[in-house]
Amino acid sequence: MPFKHIALLGLGLIASSIAMALRRNNSETKITGFSRSKRTRRKAEKIDFCKVSESISDCVLGADLVILCVPVGAMGDLMQRVAPYLSKGTIVSDVGSVKVNVISEINPFIPKEVIFVPAHPLAGTENSGPDAGFATLFDNRWCILTPTDQTPIDATKKVKKFWQSLGAEVCEMDASHHDLVLSVTSHAPHLIAFTMVGVADEFSKVTNSEVINYSAAGFRDFTRLAASDPIMWRDIFINNKDAALEILGRFTEELFKLQSAIRRKDGDFLLKYFERTRSIRRNIIEAGQDTAEPNFGRKK
Amino acid sequence: MPFKHIALLGLGLIASSIAMALRRNNSETKITGFSRSKRTRRKAEKIDFCKVSESISDCVLGADLVILCVPVGAMGDLMQRVAPYLSKGTIVSDVGSVKVNVISEINPFIPKEVIFVPAHPLAGTENSGPDAGFATLFDNRWCILTPTDQTPIDATKKVKKFWQSLGAEVCEMDASHHDLVLSVTSHAPHLIAFTMVGVADEFSKVTNSEVINYSAAGFRDFTRLAASDPIMWRDIFINNKDAALEILGRFTEELFKLQSAIRRKDGDFLLKYFERTRSIRRNIIEAGQDTAEPNFGRKK
Repeated sequence: MPFKHIALLGLGLIASSIAMALRRNNSETKITGFSRSKRTRRKAEKIDFCKVSESISDCVLGADLVILCVPVGAMGDLMQRVAPYLSKGTIVSDVGSVKVNVISEINPFIPKEVIFVPAHPLAGTENSGPDAGFATLFDNRWCILTPTDQTPIDATKKVKKFWQSLGAEVCEMDASHHDLVLSVTSHAPHLIAFTMVGVADEFSKVTNSEVINYSAAGFRDFTRLAASDPIMWRDIFINNKDAALEILGRFTEELFKLQSAIRRKDGDFLLKYFERTRSIRRNIIEAGQDTAEPNFGRKK
Repeated sequence: MPFKHIALLGLGLIASSIAMALRRNNSETKITGFSRSKRTRRKAEKIDFCKVSESISDCVLGADLVILCVPVGAMGDLMQRVAPYLSKGTIVSDVGSVKVNVISEINPFIPKEVIFVPAHPLAGTENSGPDAGFATLFDNRWCILTPTDQTPIDATKKVKKFWQSLGAEVCEMDASHHDLVLSVTSHAPHLIAFTMVGVADEFSKVTNSEVINYSAAGFRDFTRLAASDPIMWRDIFINNKDAALEILGRFTEELFKLQSAIRRKDGDFLLKYFERTRSIRRNIIEAGQDTAEPNFGRKK
């Protein structure tokens, strides 16, 4: 563990999971945390996954790694507020789901002799808040680092070691490529899920209680995505607008092709399409990013 | 258990699960099964969830309940082939995911003094074939009966008892309303998942291995749906064309609204939308159709 004192700014699902994953390793690393919300601070104190500070300056005092764990839209402000309290040589990192915009929001406020290593752990659940965290969240999950031209290689290496010690696999990527990859694997699927749940909610020919009762047939899996933190997702779409719109445009074109095949009752087209998508599932299971176990929504 | 001998025509996920659920209850009911595919018959014999017959006539000989467990597009043909071998008073039921079209395909071949009770158990996984079945598939899941004008109330009651004995909750619905409800809760979500997976597969700026590696951020849940049986889904969309196209039309309109909000960076609109969809998730958990446990794709 290359850090002696880690300060977590923001105390939600990601921050609490970082602290719990560190504690699981019996790490001697000091962990302090701060949230602007008093209620969140009291909650975090009760769960006791880190030493909760009452001010941002207290929290980062002496820290050699400061991680910004707030929604993407709040990163710039937070960086501006914490900047005066950072010592020389401190590494600042973040967990934002969008990288190009977040880097351009944070970078102007990084003091001289403070180092910024942008990062994005691809982990999370549909739950949010300090009580949603758990120690195994990052196990076998990817954390993508997107160092800038100014990031020294040594600092990137240290942050890499940090995430590996939490159980994650680490890779590096160009920030703008990261934003495109995530728009395909995360942002578009979430927006589509939000949309489908919204349509079902408004479709007057079918009652809401019918939708809910009969949701196990597919709709349920969309509601899981569509239950993710609303503020986090608002910020993601606004901050990764161009990549999100590009994928959604492609999605619409493709949906029209399939709709047209249904209208024409073109069974061959549909069958070939569905056979292709099925094989992608197998590759994901082989890559260890899901289990082959059937999901029938009940683990009791 | 109101039936002494149940014949299963088709030996996939649903048929094998029916047999296993019956056996779990130590039911004395005789279970015979037939599949047109020799390979499937041998597989079923190996798993040994029912007595496998070598012909359709052998399978239904003496059966008081015959269940058609084949894809929606094969129902009419199967009914025509089995009709000559049915005795007076036999009840025929099915498990088709579409009801209006399936009823109109099956009904013309129902012999006089044979009774048809259309049914649709809302249960399944992304896996298919006789080895995908398991005894608890129907526990706490809905089975929707859509009796026609010619279905005697007594027969509907018997089929209701049958599904209840398998662990399902049973309700009745008009066939055309069923098709609309399912187009919202199942058919549209599946088509959208197929589309999203197809887009990701074809998007050349992001490699397939990137999509697969970083799928845990949302995309993975779509691949689960998009891995469902291709023949089954081809038949569903062709046989429930009008309802599917109606919902997909609504979906596209709604998606355009959200895309436009992203383009305009209208954070308030997005936030309100996402808060609404989140609350629907809570209602599904309260209705017992999913657990609140976070899904992070690893159960090991």
